[in-house]
Amino acid sequence: MTAQPGSRNEKTASEITRDDIGNGLFILQKKDGFRFGIDAVLLSHFASVSDGGRAMDLCTGSGIIPHLMWADARKAGRSASFLGLEISESAASLAKESALLNGLSGEVEIVQGDVKEAAELFPAGSFDTVTCNPPYTKAGCGRVELTADGKFPEKMAARHELLMTFGDAASAARHLLKSGGWFYLVHRPARLPEIMGSLKENAFSLKMIRFVHPAPGREATMALLAAQKNAGEQLTVLPPLFVEDGSGTWTDELLSIYGMERKD
Amino acid sequence: MTAQPGSRNEKTASEITRDDIGNGLFILQKKDGFRFGIDAVLLSHFASVSDGGRAMDLCTGSGIIPHLMWADARKAGRSASFLGLEISESAASLAKESALLNGLSGEVEIVQGDVKEAAELFPAGSFDTVTCNPPYTKAGCGRVELTADGKFPEKMAARHELLMTFGDAASAARHLLKSGGWFYLVHRPARLPEIMGSLKENAFSLKMIRFVHPAPGREATMALLAAQKNAGEQLTVLPPLFVEDGSGTWTDELLSIYGMERKD
Repeated sequence: MTAQPGSRNEKTASEITRDDIGNGLFILQKKDGFRFGIDAVLLSHFASVSDGGRAMDLCTGSGIIPHLMWADARKAGRSASFLGLEISESAASLAKESALLNGLSGEVEIVQGDVKEAAELFPAGSFDTVTCNPPYTKAGCGRVELTADGKFPEKMAARHELLMTFGDAASAARHLLKSGGWFYLVHRPARLPEIMGSLKENAFSLKMIRFVHPAPGREATMALLAAQKNAGEQLTVLPPLFVEDGSGTWTDELLSIYGMERKD
Repeated sequence: MTAQPGSRNEKTASEITRDDIGNGLFILQKKDGFRFGIDAVLLSHFASVSDGGRAMDLCTGSGIIPHLMWADARKAGRSASFLGLEISESAASLAKESALLNGLSGEVEIVQGDVKEAAELFPAGSFDTVTCNPPYTKAGCGRVELTADGKFPEKMAARHELLMTFGDAASAARHLLKSGGWFYLVHRPARLPEIMGSLKENAFSLKMIRFVHPAPGREATMALLAAQKNAGEQLTVLPPLFVEDGSGTWTDELLSIYGMERKD
């Protein structure tokens, strides 16, 4: 357990990847840590922020969502500011490095802190948009081994509700958003009834859902949700999003979201 | 307003249609009354009843759902008994005539009565399956003109929550079903948050949803729901059902539900 001089840097350098996310942007991630997935990319594309708006990403991890949303806003000719909140010190520090690397420290700010303390960290009603790609699995489902210093491993905390529940995220979003502001999230369809109950308890009306299916004829594996604070109840179920067509290749829509084109 | 001798029968005969619903079955319907739609057909196909089971259809109207479910059960080699509850005396009477015409009076029973009085009409826990294609629109939305004798027109009551709310149907289903029994329904996606809340209040867990889209790339216009009484919460979002393909023709799945084959 004694620190080896120089070992931390060497280890860090070899354990960090620099992933190209398009638009000349890069995201730094630990090789063996929690790494962003398709859900974060789809949520970034699904969510939007108005011109001059302020967006908060809860559980930002690598900062992928504010980075991609910044790129989408710029493409749409909108200027907006983005903030990512991350509880893990090492993840928050890497996300800050990514913003610096991309020359976006002014527009993509990363704050290390707990979603449960959002009400102490930020003034009420100070955001137009809140996004969240939260841990999907309830605490108590599956085995969790603590680290040597008795903490939850970062990777586990990103997947399991160990440090926060969905209710904590919804409550933070309620505090952070202006009346009429939008809360965008991605979650597992299996937990939808509970998620919808929690949104309602926190003064949100679910306005749009888009289900993501791995392919036509397959059950949905993700649900993209858009809820509005203090709004009337009227839900629209958008056309389904298919990741692959029937033959195992990505659909045109998915390629377009990833900024790729089909090569025939 | 004086009754013309013979006029009722003449009028009735000209106002009634006899619609072929496949499998050698026919449904009698008033030409200008509420007539069954694709939602009833899709719900009949989505719902199922176990062998030897007992199924209740709330707001049965013409009796289309118990008739189609009877045909599906027979095809699957299951024997089951079906009951339809309908508040309108004239609709209930026509539905009884349809069952008689089809030689099914023993297996498809029609009862004239109010969903709100289900607890007085039937013993608790006496059904395995409950289906309902309820009025979709909230009372107070749209103008309703009363009939000359001060009643709600039958057609309006089938579309608007004038005589009952969804909560009444959910409460009746809770009373009628055994623990673990299934409640199948079709409703508008716009009202899903409220429907889900009402299901939860009545001890139902929503287990499956299937959204119906007019075509790929279009928003959902119907939601087929399967909820189970006194069960654990775990929702599955089934593959979407498309009515038409992109080119304006019915999909193979829809043709198959209607018992039709594509003629090329």
